[in-house]
Amino acid sequence: MAIPLTRNLAMSPALAQSRSTPERALASATPSARRGELSRSLRLRYAGQRSVTLRYELHGPRAAPVVLLAGGISAHRHVAPSARFPEAGWADALVSAGRALDPSRYRLLAVDYLGADGQLDAPIDTADQADALALLLDALGVARLHAYVGYSYGALVGLQFAARHAARLRRLVAVSGAHQPHPYAAAWRALQRRAVALGQHQHADAQGLALARQFAMLSYRTPEEFAERFAAAPRLVDGRVRCAAEDYLDAAGARYVARTPLTAYLRLSESIDLHRVDPATIGAPVTVVAVDSDRLVPLGDSATLAQALGERGELRVLRSRYGHDAFLKEPRLVDPILAEALGTSGALP
Amino acid sequence: MAIPLTRNLAMSPALAQSRSTPERALASATPSARRGELSRSLRLRYAGQRSVTLRYELHGPRAAPVVLLAGGISAHRHVAPSARFPEAGWADALVSAGRALDPSRYRLLAVDYLGADGQLDAPIDTADQADALALLLDALGVARLHAYVGYSYGALVGLQFAARHAARLRRLVAVSGAHQPHPYAAAWRALQRRAVALGQHQHADAQGLALARQFAMLSYRTPEEFAERFAAAPRLVDGRVRCAAEDYLDAAGARYVARTPLTAYLRLSESIDLHRVDPATIGAPVTVVAVDSDRLVPLGDSATLAQALGERGELRVLRSRYGHDAFLKEPRLVDPILAEALGTSGALP
Repeated sequence: MAIPLTRNLAMSPALAQSRSTPERALASATPSARRGELSRSLRLRYAGQRSVTLRYELHGPRAAPVVLLAGGISAHRHVAPSARFPEAGWADALVSAGRALDPSRYRLLAVDYLGADGQLDAPIDTADQADALALLLDALGVARLHAYVGYSYGALVGLQFAARHAARLRRLVAVSGAHQPHPYAAAWRALQRRAVALGQHQHADAQGLALARQFAMLSYRTPEEFAERFAAAPRLVDGRVRCAAEDYLDAAGARYVARTPLTAYLRLSESIDLHRVDPATIGAPVTVVAVDSDRLVPLGDSATLAQALGERGELRVLRSRYGHDAFLKEPRLVDPILAEALGTSGALP
Repeated sequence: MAIPLTRNLAMSPALAQSRSTPERALASATPSARRGELSRSLRLRYAGQRSVTLRYELHGPRAAPVVLLAGGISAHRHVAPSARFPEAGWADALVSAGRALDPSRYRLLAVDYLGADGQLDAPIDTADQADALALLLDALGVARLHAYVGYSYGALVGLQFAARHAARLRRLVAVSGAHQPHPYAAAWRALQRRAVALGQHQHADAQGLALARQFAMLSYRTPEEFAERFAAAPRLVDGRVRCAAEDYLDAAGARYVARTPLTAYLRLSESIDLHRVDPATIGAPVTVVAVDSDRLVPLGDSATLAQALGERGELRVLRSRYGHDAFLKEPRLVDPILAEALGTSGALP
C-alpha cells in the first residue's frame, strides 16, 4: 500500500497552544484555501457538446496529497470552514484537525456539480460529472488523486471516475452509493420530482420543491431516529392533524428551497436514476462503505458491488440509526475507515 | 377455547358437484348476502354530536357466527363477490370456500368507514369508528362477534373496539396495526396530505390525490418487490427521466382517484395518526399479526403491543416481501393464523 506524504507531526509549543483556541488553530492549519472556476467544452452523454463551468475549492497545504471529497446532490465545493472562507461547509463533521480528513495533512478538493447552478436544463449523467472532474484535474495540474472520497451522489460519480479515469486515482472510497440505483429508491425520487412538477403547475415552485425535499428527508433518515425524536402525539391545528415531525420537515424544506435552484434539483435527482456503472470496468481499488439502515442504498446493493469488484473491492459496514445520512452524522464510525483508506492513522499524536 | 358453531360439513352430492362450477357454488354458498344502511346520532371525539350513516354488507348464512372483517382506509363493505353482489371485493384473496374466512361457514360483516363517503370533513378518531360499529351491532341484533379480523386501519379500529366494547367480541385478530402509529409512518402520511393540499392549492385535486396515493404505495410495499418488478433502466421521455416503476404508480394513482373522495382520504389518513389505545384497556384476547418487512407498522411496534397485552395477546409474524400489503397478498400465510383464531381448521374436508 502506498504511504502518503504527510507533514511533520511534531508540534511546536506555539501550535500546541493554539489547539485550545479553535480559530487560531484553523488559521494556522489552512494556509491555502482558494476557489476558482473555469469554462470548458465537454461532450455530455445526453445533452451533447456543451460549454460548462467548473467551480472548485482547494483547502489545505499546496504540497499535500490531493483528496477529492464529493457529497450528495446538495453538496458543493465548500467542505469546511477555513481562514479565508469561514462559513460552515457541508462536511464540517468530517473535515478538521485530528480527523482522517485533516486539512493540514491533505489538500482537499471539492466541486459544485455540473447542473448545481440550475443553468443546465438537460439530462445529466454521472459519467458527465466524472469527465468534468478529469478536466478540472488537468487544469489544476493534478495527475493523480491520493484518494477520492465520495458519499451518496459523490460515490456514484466516483465509481464512474474510477471506471473512466482509473489512472487518476489511487483509491476510491464509495460511501452509500452503488453501481446502479435501487428501483425502490428510484421510484421514491421519481415521486419527489412529481411533487416539484405539481408545484410548477401553477407557480408554487417553492411549495413543490419543499415537499420533494421533505419526502427525500424520509429516505435519508430512519424510523428509529424518528421514533426517538418525534414520539409526541399529533396536535389539531385549524381542525387539521399536525404530526410531531412536521416542524422539523418544514424547516428542512425551507432551508433547501432557499439554497437550491429547482432545475438543479430536478436534473441532479434524475442523474442518480440514470446512473449505471459496470463494476467490471472499474480499474481502481474501491472501499465500498454501506450503512445497515440505509433506505436508499440497501446494504445488499453495496455488497453486490463489492463482490463484483473482486480483489479491487472491500466492503465496510456502518451500524447506525442515521441511514443514508450516517456518513455526515457519525464521524467516529467513518473516520477509521477513511484513515485506513488514506493510509494514515487518522489521529494526530 | 370456545368452539364456534359451524354448519354440517357433510356435502350433498349436488353441492359436491356444484364445487366444480364456481358460479353455482358461489350462489349456493351465499344465500344471504345483503346490504343496508342506517342513520344514527353519535358523539364523535373531536367533531361532537353528529348524525352518521352506517353502511354495511352481510355475506354468509343467516345463522352462522358473525365475523367482522375490516380493512385499510380504502376498504369498504364489499369484501368478496356473492351471487347478489358479483363484483370483486377488497378481500377476494382471503374470502372464499376452503379458506378460513369461508362465507358458507361464517356470516361476514363489513362496513364503509365513517368519513369514507367524503361527507364528514372533521377529525375522525378510531374510537368513533369503534362506537359506530357497536351501534351497528345493536341494530343488527348481534350481541357478540365470533371474531373481529382487522387489517391496517381495521386493526386500529379493532383495538379501539376491544378496548371500548370488549364484551362484544370473542377475539380480535389485529393484522399490521398497533396501539399507536409509528412516528416515521405518521410523517410519511403527513407529507402525503401535503401533496393533496398542494394539488388543491393548484386546482389540481386529482394530481395531488394521485401523488399522495403513489407515495403511500411505497409505504405499503417493499424494496424487495420493486427490485424484482422494476429493475429496468429508466427511459428518457420528452427530455425527462422516467423510471421503470412509474407506469405502475400512474395506474395506482388513477385507480385510487377514480374511487376516493379527497376529503375521505384526508380525514381517514389523519385518523390513523390520531389513533392511540392503551393496551391495558383492551379486554378481549388479541392475535397480533405482524409482517417482518412492513415499513408502516414495524414488527417492533406489534411486538410491543403483544407484550403489553400479556396473557390477552399473542404475536404471529409473517415473513413476506409484500410489507404492509402482505395480508391481502399472502393468503396461504394468513389462512392458518385466521383458522386458529377462528377456532376452525380453515379447510373443508
